[in-house]
Amino acid sequence: MGSKEDPYRVILTEKELPEAWYNIQADLPVPAPPPIHPATKEPCTADDLLPLFPVELVKQEVSRERYVEIPEPVRDVYKMYRPSPLHRAYRLEKELDTPARIFYKNESLSPAGSHKPNTAIAQAYYNKAEGVENITTETGAGQWGSALALGCKLFGINLRVYMVKISFQQKPYRRTMMEVWGATVFASPTDTTEAGRAVLAEDPDCPGSLGLAISEAVEACVTSDNTKYALGSVLNHVCMHQTIVGLEAKAQMEKIDEYPDVVIGCVGGGSNFSGLAFPFMKDKFEGTDVQAIAVEPVSCPTLTAGKYEYDFGDQAGTTPLLKMYTLGHKFIPSPIHAGGLRYHGDAPLLSLLVNEGYMDAVAYPQTEIFDAAMMFARTEGLIIAPETAHCVKYTIDEALRCRESGESKSLLFNLSGHGLLDLKGYEEYIAGNLVDYSR
Amino acid sequence: MGSKEDPYRVILTEKELPEAWYNIQADLPVPAPPPIHPATKEPCTADDLLPLFPVELVKQEVSRERYVEIPEPVRDVYKMYRPSPLHRAYRLEKELDTPARIFYKNESLSPAGSHKPNTAIAQAYYNKAEGVENITTETGAGQWGSALALGCKLFGINLRVYMVKISFQQKPYRRTMMEVWGATVFASPTDTTEAGRAVLAEDPDCPGSLGLAISEAVEACVTSDNTKYALGSVLNHVCMHQTIVGLEAKAQMEKIDEYPDVVIGCVGGGSNFSGLAFPFMKDKFEGTDVQAIAVEPVSCPTLTAGKYEYDFGDQAGTTPLLKMYTLGHKFIPSPIHAGGLRYHGDAPLLSLLVNEGYMDAVAYPQTEIFDAAMMFARTEGLIIAPETAHCVKYTIDEALRCRESGESKSLLFNLSGHGLLDLKGYEEYIAGNLVDYSR
Repeated sequence: MGSKEDPYRVILTEKELPEAWYNIQADLPVPAPPPIHPATKEPCTADDLLPLFPVELVKQEVSRERYVEIPEPVRDVYKMYRPSPLHRAYRLEKELDTPARIFYKNESLSPAGSHKPNTAIAQAYYNKAEGVENITTETGAGQWGSALALGCKLFGINLRVYMVKISFQQKPYRRTMMEVWGATVFASPTDTTEAGRAVLAEDPDCPGSLGLAISEAVEACVTSDNTKYALGSVLNHVCMHQTIVGLEAKAQMEKIDEYPDVVIGCVGGGSNFSGLAFPFMKDKFEGTDVQAIAVEPVSCPTLTAGKYEYDFGDQAGTTPLLKMYTLGHKFIPSPIHAGGLRYHGDAPLLSLLVNEGYMDAVAYPQTEIFDAAMMFARTEGLIIAPETAHCVKYTIDEALRCRESGESKSLLFNLSGHGLLDLKGYEEYIAGNLVDYSR
Repeated sequence: MGSKEDPYRVILTEKELPEAWYNIQADLPVPAPPPIHPATKEPCTADDLLPLFPVELVKQEVSRERYVEIPEPVRDVYKMYRPSPLHRAYRLEKELDTPARIFYKNESLSPAGSHKPNTAIAQAYYNKAEGVENITTETGAGQWGSALALGCKLFGINLRVYMVKISFQQKPYRRTMMEVWGATVFASPTDTTEAGRAVLAEDPDCPGSLGLAISEAVEACVTSDNTKYALGSVLNHVCMHQTIVGLEAKAQMEKIDEYPDVVIGCVGGGSNFSGLAFPFMKDKFEGTDVQAIAVEPVSCPTLTAGKYEYDFGDQAGTTPLLKMYTLGHKFIPSPIHAGGLRYHGDAPLLSLLVNEGYMDAVAYPQTEIFDAAMMFARTEGLIIAPETAHCVKYTIDEALRCRESGESKSLLFNLSGHGLLDLKGYEEYIAGNLVDYSR
């Protein structure tokens, strides 16, 4: 399969943009455990979710339909940056002197610089279609907040973002991006919610946390008129929107007569890797031999060291209980540069597939992933996000194993984001100041 | 021409990547005035330039060959990010309610985030092919330095960058980018050159200037073994390498049965606009009706208020004299955010075409170009460089004139770079702190 004549980038035309997302819930080998209501301990009903999400997204959350049509207005926005290119990493292969063929799907070319707009645009559309005028959300380092700001601006929705205060202060440019796209950004904790005021009363200088920001965003949603809430990962509908990545990648590999032996992605909440991998998992359920590797930081080793059990999605313990790999919802991850991987849990669908043995997981320390990021920048040219560097590290290791074994495997990873707003991490690495953290 | 059915992005495949650059020197309606040696006042000879540049680039500087073949190793690197997409700005058109059709060539998707790698890669290749092991250059805000760092890393050349000290301190992330790609970056003035030491002796806290950084880079070149110097704009060979932009754009517009009525670009040294416009100027020489508009800041109004005369390329007055529009080589531009447009002169080839009436120029103040950048971000999604915002401002104004006149013009501009490392300017704009500067 494949050849030395493969192009550097496999390009799809606008006409080849997928017309539907793939919903893996139609094909799961075992049923997905439902979310549980924290008070009743019964499976959540649609009524439990409708205060937070529009009807269509609640439907998608539990849908068993195999393909869900992408609405035309969403496709129109996708067409501003999609289909994204599939690259062959010839220069990295040469550097590693490996017989492996390395491919990556480049999601860093979206206006927000990551895969996040794939679901942000869809969520903004469905809210707008149901007459929602306002959305609240939280953001840590700002990737999700900026992607949703873009989506909301394009569909004419007002967005309020609760940004963890320490990031608000340390990452002013992510905040500026959100404001360029019209969002109102608060440093959380704020004095505009009960949850925020309670924390500020005890500690006026509290730097905030993602858990608290979620609590504020949810409270602001349920106490405001015509307002919904949006989440950037974890949930089923979010992972489904991201399958546009894997569907395109599959079509692109088919064009050059390739099929991956291994699909690889970094995992925080799980949406970018689910997006790449799920369309290939469909084949795996039918017997195709394809490995799926989720890569995470050793300092937040959800899949490699967590427990598969029901836990809250947020640190405050206010969301429905989700069956997932978790380090416990009170777990506070170390301040690694890969802020997007600092989450105590994982998407329930991805967790299920790991638990059933369809996917595997590995973990790396921060210094090793920056080694990989530097090699990638110096061969493939792209300065990648520290999150993405996790799956590049695994890809490099696997390619080196191929050099030992002589196997000519086909490796495919998701280049989920660029690192142009994460150069602080590179600066520390170059200066020799980067440290590792244990769990 | 064109239709409502045009795609959002016109995509070329790798096979459609141009095989040669277009050399406008073959078709000029009047001869280009040669560079003049500052001591002899005679036209420069190849011997004057060979201490600084490799033979092949010196040849290109004076070549009359219409098409210069792009070497295969350069095309191989181009293929990592080229051909770049041509976008139709449907959302901006709708916002402006204009009958104009707006297209932009997206050069912001290169690894360094601008058009600069188009020549950096070529220059690194020609140096390497002639056995050069080291290159020196200067950089202001860091766009050129980072592009050349990428090019040098990919071809295995050591790069020393003299970065204006005030930028070195204020823009640490551009410096980090250069270091990620292996360059050694100095804060200029340094104590490693005579030029630098002389300045430091008088003013140990001197913040540096582009002119001084050029002097240091040139001195470091001529006093080091096996070392050449590289320039990121102005010169003929640089503008020629950038014609890959216009050649692709022309092919892309042909695919949708379009031809621009107006081509538009921002101008600092002139390379990005020359790159887009020159292939269309070839048609104009043959009678085709196409307007070319160069856009510059009112605070550095080279083409709109400068004189067309021989002047030095650097502030220190050490380079050959170039016939160009200039504000005088001692002119110190105001500290606008569009650092790449802060140059006292312009490319001689572009200057010639403006002087002969083939191209026109307009100037805008900083606050107005940020108005345009904000509108662009909120419709087309992309956060553009302040430099690029200049041509977006003109495009918007022209589209509004079309609304008045009812003309359905086809407008094409060069989106020369993204603004992700320029968010400080957006932050000031949003905070209401952005100021205008006069000349």
